[in-house]
Amino acid sequence: MTQTNRQWLLANRPQGMVSSDNFELVERPLEPLADGDARARMHYLTFEPAMRGWMDDVESYMPPVPLGEPMRAPGLAIVEESKHPSYAPGDVVFGMMSWSEYVHQHDGWSKVPEGVDYELILGPCGGTGLTAYFGLLDVGQPKEGETVVVSGAAGATGSVAAQIARIKGCRVIGIAGGEDKCRWLTEEARLDAVIDYKSEKISARLGELCPDGVDVFFDNVGGSTLEAVLNNMAMDARIVICGMISNYNDAEPQPGPRNLFQVIVKRATIRGFLVFDYMDRRDEALADLFSWIAAGEIASRSDVQEGFENIPATFLRLFTGANQGKQLLRL
Amino acid sequence: MTQTNRQWLLANRPQGMVSSDNFELVERPLEPLADGDARARMHYLTFEPAMRGWMDDVESYMPPVPLGEPMRAPGLAIVEESKHPSYAPGDVVFGMMSWSEYVHQHDGWSKVPEGVDYELILGPCGGTGLTAYFGLLDVGQPKEGETVVVSGAAGATGSVAAQIARIKGCRVIGIAGGEDKCRWLTEEARLDAVIDYKSEKISARLGELCPDGVDVFFDNVGGSTLEAVLNNMAMDARIVICGMISNYNDAEPQPGPRNLFQVIVKRATIRGFLVFDYMDRRDEALADLFSWIAAGEIASRSDVQEGFENIPATFLRLFTGANQGKQLLRL
Repeated sequence: MTQTNRQWLLANRPQGMVSSDNFELVERPLEPLADGDARARMHYLTFEPAMRGWMDDVESYMPPVPLGEPMRAPGLAIVEESKHPSYAPGDVVFGMMSWSEYVHQHDGWSKVPEGVDYELILGPCGGTGLTAYFGLLDVGQPKEGETVVVSGAAGATGSVAAQIARIKGCRVIGIAGGEDKCRWLTEEARLDAVIDYKSEKISARLGELCPDGVDVFFDNVGGSTLEAVLNNMAMDARIVICGMISNYNDAEPQPGPRNLFQVIVKRATIRGFLVFDYMDRRDEALADLFSWIAAGEIASRSDVQEGFENIPATFLRLFTGANQGKQLLRL
Repeated sequence: MTQTNRQWLLANRPQGMVSSDNFELVERPLEPLADGDARARMHYLTFEPAMRGWMDDVESYMPPVPLGEPMRAPGLAIVEESKHPSYAPGDVVFGMMSWSEYVHQHDGWSKVPEGVDYELILGPCGGTGLTAYFGLLDVGQPKEGETVVVSGAAGATGSVAAQIARIKGCRVIGIAGGEDKCRWLTEEARLDAVIDYKSEKISARLGELCPDGVDVFFDNVGGSTLEAVLNNMAMDARIVICGMISNYNDAEPQPGPRNLFQVIVKRATIRGFLVFDYMDRRDEALADLFSWIAAGEIASRSDVQEGFENIPATFLRLFTGANQGKQLLRL
């Protein structure tokens, strides 16, 4: 009996909003294992807005996913067979994988330590948690007593960034969409205030909530959200550009904020970053994150979908705001 | 005989492009001199794009010029009468003044040292020269061998910034409009290359001239020029936002660059600044600037118009690009 491997391939590149039609489900025979490779069975896939960018044929921080290849995605898998000295059958590994039932790899996977919850590894201690940690602390440099605003605050990255700011003694305001997310942010994540962009005007509310201006803005959204915060900056404000989910599905690039002149008036700094640049400091971040989680200081929630067939639909949840916390799928 | 004082008042606020109709020429009796004041006769006025912003009724780094008051402007004047302990008749002073034949002041003027050329004081060693110095060196932090791009490169600020970058061992590319300005930049200011935005596509030319990307961009222009450079950044690029002359005359704010996402891809920093924050380090900058000028390292040119009647028309030259170098007017 030949074993088969189902995969979701990138069938065509989206024009504007991503849809299920951009992917094609195929079933292929499992390739024989080459020397130096290991084969693992996917157990969890994780979904991040940045994956939308990998689908476009444009230069970015990662090469585009080639057409006809399985969609690239971070995930967690269990090694079944190995011709690689570092991996043994039964090892639980995480890293960059793909929308496949089985993945091959010769390096770049990390082992999950014994006894650590898988959803924790993929959530606040995963790539999005590390992104929040280094983006907020290294790029944003918040000081105790400062006002920190986080957009996409109920998301996987934003929720961790907002809570780290709270732990560091800042006043934290989250921007999120919908009552349920906003309630979670005040009750569970214990932010000082929340703006529901679906029912409130961000700029006017920020003016009320932050009469002295915003010191640090951790932005996952871009677009009009960024523009609203630029109108409400304190002197020497720092704007951390972590992501721009509001733009990812536009066929034509959206205009930027009309009020960039405010960076002169407020002597502000806008800075982009990628978590890949901080990988040599990963242990430092994980030590802090584990201790904060152990102390009950970081609330997190995962939105776990099920089933290989549901992979594209689960990805789309990110762009409608349907997901409540870190979007995962268990195979 | 009562002495009179002619003044150009801000008569109404411009909607979009500034015009002569925004100003009104009045003749008023000279006010008696109060204790602690000095009176000086204007000798030179200087014109800067930022003055356009002072005409709008919006919060900025300086209060708006009130309607019915003389237009605020930096200049140089000769003290004629003084009830102020620091100023004596005959002193040549410079600082913030106005579009008037005579100005009163109780503080804030600096004396011009003996033997220093007035046009030098108002040009490369004036406010625009200090802006270039601190903006390029402190905010941009260019390193020897890096590629520096300057927009508005033939202007008062840009030409000094570009030449300081050359002095610091950088490869310097200027962006300017028109053959005459571009020739001056290569022949007199000795830049490595120039892009004439009136006849060349900035983004495409930058791609050819800087295949490894732009390390530092000193931007006086904003708008599509900024967008073109964001498309051509090197890793860890620094974008110094000095001014946005392309936007100053818009009734509606212009959209910002559509490619801000590039700050993530290139881990770039966009930073605004105002020279006022550096005034305690003014002597350090002037010492460098004087020594570079003495060594023939900084070419400069002034565009000197004449006559009190021509003040508004001279201001408008800045926005059509008619001025060749630092715009001055001698009264």
